[in-house]
Amino acid sequence: MPGESPSRPSMVWDAWGIPSAHAPLPEKVRTLLAQVFGVSGEAVARRDEGNVPLRASVLGPTHVAGLSALVGPDHVRVDHRARLLHAGGKSTPDLLRRRDLDPQDAPDAVVYPAGHDEVLAVLAYCAEQGIAVVPFGGGTSVVGGVDPARGRFDAVVALDLRRLDALTDLDPVSGAATLGAGLTGPQAEELLAARGWSLGHFPQSFEFASIGGFAATRSSGQASAGYGRFDDMIQRLRVATPSGTLDLGRAPASAAGPDLRELFSGSEGTLGVITAVTLRVHPVPETIVYQAWSFPDFGAGAAALRTVAQAGAAPTVMRLSDEAETGLNLARADDIGGESVSGCLAVTTFEGSAAHVAARSAEANALLAAAGGNPLGEQPAREWAHGRFAAPYLRDALLDVGILCETLETATNWAHLIEVKASVTAALTDSLSGQGTPPLVMCHISHTYPTGASLYFTIVAKQLDDPITQWRNAKQAVGDAIAASGATITHHHAVGRDHRPWLTEEIGELGVRVLRAVKQAVDPVGILNPGKLIP
Amino acid sequence: MPGESPSRPSMVWDAWGIPSAHAPLPEKVRTLLAQVFGVSGEAVARRDEGNVPLRASVLGPTHVAGLSALVGPDHVRVDHRARLLHAGGKSTPDLLRRRDLDPQDAPDAVVYPAGHDEVLAVLAYCAEQGIAVVPFGGGTSVVGGVDPARGRFDAVVALDLRRLDALTDLDPVSGAATLGAGLTGPQAEELLAARGWSLGHFPQSFEFASIGGFAATRSSGQASAGYGRFDDMIQRLRVATPSGTLDLGRAPASAAGPDLRELFSGSEGTLGVITAVTLRVHPVPETIVYQAWSFPDFGAGAAALRTVAQAGAAPTVMRLSDEAETGLNLARADDIGGESVSGCLAVTTFEGSAAHVAARSAEANALLAAAGGNPLGEQPAREWAHGRFAAPYLRDALLDVGILCETLETATNWAHLIEVKASVTAALTDSLSGQGTPPLVMCHISHTYPTGASLYFTIVAKQLDDPITQWRNAKQAVGDAIAASGATITHHHAVGRDHRPWLTEEIGELGVRVLRAVKQAVDPVGILNPGKLIP
Repeated sequence: MPGESPSRPSMVWDAWGIPSAHAPLPEKVRTLLAQVFGVSGEAVARRDEGNVPLRASVLGPTHVAGLSALVGPDHVRVDHRARLLHAGGKSTPDLLRRRDLDPQDAPDAVVYPAGHDEVLAVLAYCAEQGIAVVPFGGGTSVVGGVDPARGRFDAVVALDLRRLDALTDLDPVSGAATLGAGLTGPQAEELLAARGWSLGHFPQSFEFASIGGFAATRSSGQASAGYGRFDDMIQRLRVATPSGTLDLGRAPASAAGPDLRELFSGSEGTLGVITAVTLRVHPVPETIVYQAWSFPDFGAGAAALRTVAQAGAAPTVMRLSDEAETGLNLARADDIGGESVSGCLAVTTFEGSAAHVAARSAEANALLAAAGGNPLGEQPAREWAHGRFAAPYLRDALLDVGILCETLETATNWAHLIEVKASVTAALTDSLSGQGTPPLVMCHISHTYPTGASLYFTIVAKQLDDPITQWRNAKQAVGDAIAASGATITHHHAVGRDHRPWLTEEIGELGVRVLRAVKQAVDPVGILNPGKLIP
Repeated sequence: MPGESPSRPSMVWDAWGIPSAHAPLPEKVRTLLAQVFGVSGEAVARRDEGNVPLRASVLGPTHVAGLSALVGPDHVRVDHRARLLHAGGKSTPDLLRRRDLDPQDAPDAVVYPAGHDEVLAVLAYCAEQGIAVVPFGGGTSVVGGVDPARGRFDAVVALDLRRLDALTDLDPVSGAATLGAGLTGPQAEELLAARGWSLGHFPQSFEFASIGGFAATRSSGQASAGYGRFDDMIQRLRVATPSGTLDLGRAPASAAGPDLRELFSGSEGTLGVITAVTLRVHPVPETIVYQAWSFPDFGAGAAALRTVAQAGAAPTVMRLSDEAETGLNLARADDIGGESVSGCLAVTTFEGSAAHVAARSAEANALLAAAGGNPLGEQPAREWAHGRFAAPYLRDALLDVGILCETLETATNWAHLIEVKASVTAALTDSLSGQGTPPLVMCHISHTYPTGASLYFTIVAKQLDDPITQWRNAKQAVGDAIAASGATITHHHAVGRDHRPWLTEEIGELGVRVLRAVKQAVDPVGILNPGKLIP
């Protein structure tokens, strides 16, 4: 497959990540599962991808030839494996469907354009021929953002952007780099590191997600306190649409009208295909300092983080696990259920020059200590950093033994944080307990702002016979609870298919009409990512 | 007039600010003008506002009654004074027109709604009746943003928002305040200060400009390095449109699709009327430290500021005057032409807790010193702070003695900063010298970002007989030069009428079509601020 290389591995079709990183559940976790949920911990074997029945492709040879004329015949694929690997994202319902349902749905073809002009040409072709297009970066969506939905069209193609993989410009004076949309996190960091630079965007999807996907979904990385959310980093966006090209962003800041970059950031492939992004980058940090803390409870820890965020003293990373997450030691994927700190664990890192790190950490540490934090040294923070991309693999191992595991997130003001956490937890607990499967609900803060913070929940429960419906019920309850609380339906997972029912609540009827008007201007036929984002 | 109170003074009709702050030119400046431009320094007397011929109002009694039914009869004004005070903004061409032309154009009426619902009602009425509406905050626009343009309609009303003047919510936990759009900078700061809080937004227009205007124009204050641009501070926007209400922003950050706040920030009254803004605020700073520096030249100073911005060590205020501005001592309105520092003057301030200020200033000062800065102590920085709102008064005094004086600004990446400064300076110099009036062109950096900075130019030249055309020629040349350089046409003055010719270059044809599509959705009749922003 184009671009299947060691530096750009494809994830397996029915789980997160690459096979070599898959591992059975640690004994300690199996014991815990037996105690809490009464499950044996015996894993069900997964299916061989070669034998998975797939919906037949409806894209006829004429269209394959038409698309091949635009991108080259090697770059239009209709084979089983290519289609299967673009069958959707990596939410728990996605993975449950891969394990259970037949036939699997998949795009009718996968198209691999080589650059912006080829993307434009493919969009023009598909608009003319009435073929839906799902822009596809790393395929890491957990909200159905890359589902092969056809909308009102007969056929749908996945537009895999992996060939847009160049660092086309690095401006060391301004600290800005232009990166192809198809570069994954590690590829981008590798290209930058070779020149002494770093982007510093490390969401949990980092290893597989793409630059274009980060922009299209308003991704937020674990170092957001220091380097900002991905949308903060964007200097310039290049977007291909069925109506032509947009080049947006001419300066670090501008008052030249509405900021149209902010329309295409978060557009999730419904308004155009982001092909290149110019991003703020920084020199590879000279120094990284780790510091962990414990707080007596979540409220005290949250108040401490607030003090730091509001003083403008934020570390590069700042996070806080609640009592449940801390108690399970969930911040350490390799030692879950092992010995944990008491109370609530907070982790901070500081990056930059030695002088910057010294000045910042002195100020932040003083504030955290004054707010009741108990310093734990660097080890727990290093352990968190070491295991920070491992959780999605753990989810697969849990799904395999009959445990439902999923995450969701929101953000709100500091004043409402504890209340929102309580209502989300209650909605999840009530729904799942009501279905006969009382859950464990754990929570952490991983992104802080002067005015508020994110809340990230991990939910674990015993699976019912129909775990997809089981989770759908819980998700409906929790989405309604978040909307009713006034918090946002998503802080960094995006909207996709799964959060679309709540977008009208989020931006209002008129906001939805504005989005539809923009869509009509850039995608009048409506081929781009049908069924996602816009109600 | 509604709201004409000591805490909310109206500016005079033909100049900046309030009469008590007007002063003749200091002797030192008159001497300088005689030497450089050969003008005598004799001021022309201004006209009495009562005798200014005004275009007759075309808004008949039916419409006056219709509008009065919505906002009350005291709050629809068609008298000479009310209309004159809403005749437009405060650009140099605006002021020259006030001095020279007859009859003056003015809105046909001024409407003063009391709240969001009244704004909605007025917009609905005007859309139905085909009356153009110019949303009017402080009237400080320097780009023709509040010109009483009628577009394709017979009549135009100014919608003065001064009665939307409440602090409706202060959330001390989150550090967020909800402010009525009509509050001026000082009114907002006064309401907040009474509770121990501050917004920290201090553009040069601070004394008269409004909260809604700041949001609608993407204003940027002198403390932007510390507290951010106004658009950065916005948590939530309430917008009234002819198609209904938008309430945007539910969390400090969100991935729930495009950020529609960023469509209405910078919409300049063309897409809706911002009626309330929830903003990030901070406790009144415990400590303010001032520190001035000199650098051998502008390039060295800019490189030093860049180091600080990129290290994440930015002070609250950080600015740098070029050699010409420093030489004239223009940073000190009360001692222009007086004894100046050598080279280029930089000013920094640090605000916050004592610990924060100590940590930040130590880091920034070390970087500035290492980059060749020569510390000058706090006095020059205090003097800058003292005189920082005085420059627009000086402009009026200059216009009165036959000197053309205007400002303009842009922003670009650090890599292109010196080159953009040179091409702007060359365009201004070539155009004005070519017209026989060689200018003084001075420049400073007042807003810094990790990837670049703003450039703010002050231009002084002898007036020709037709100074409006003289400046229009120069503005055309410099706008073209900025567009050709790849910089933004405006960093914080907005687009209005005057920068509209360059917006297509800025966001592309398709970007303009996107804006038109949004306009069609929220203002289908097109009554809102015709002739501004959208080409």
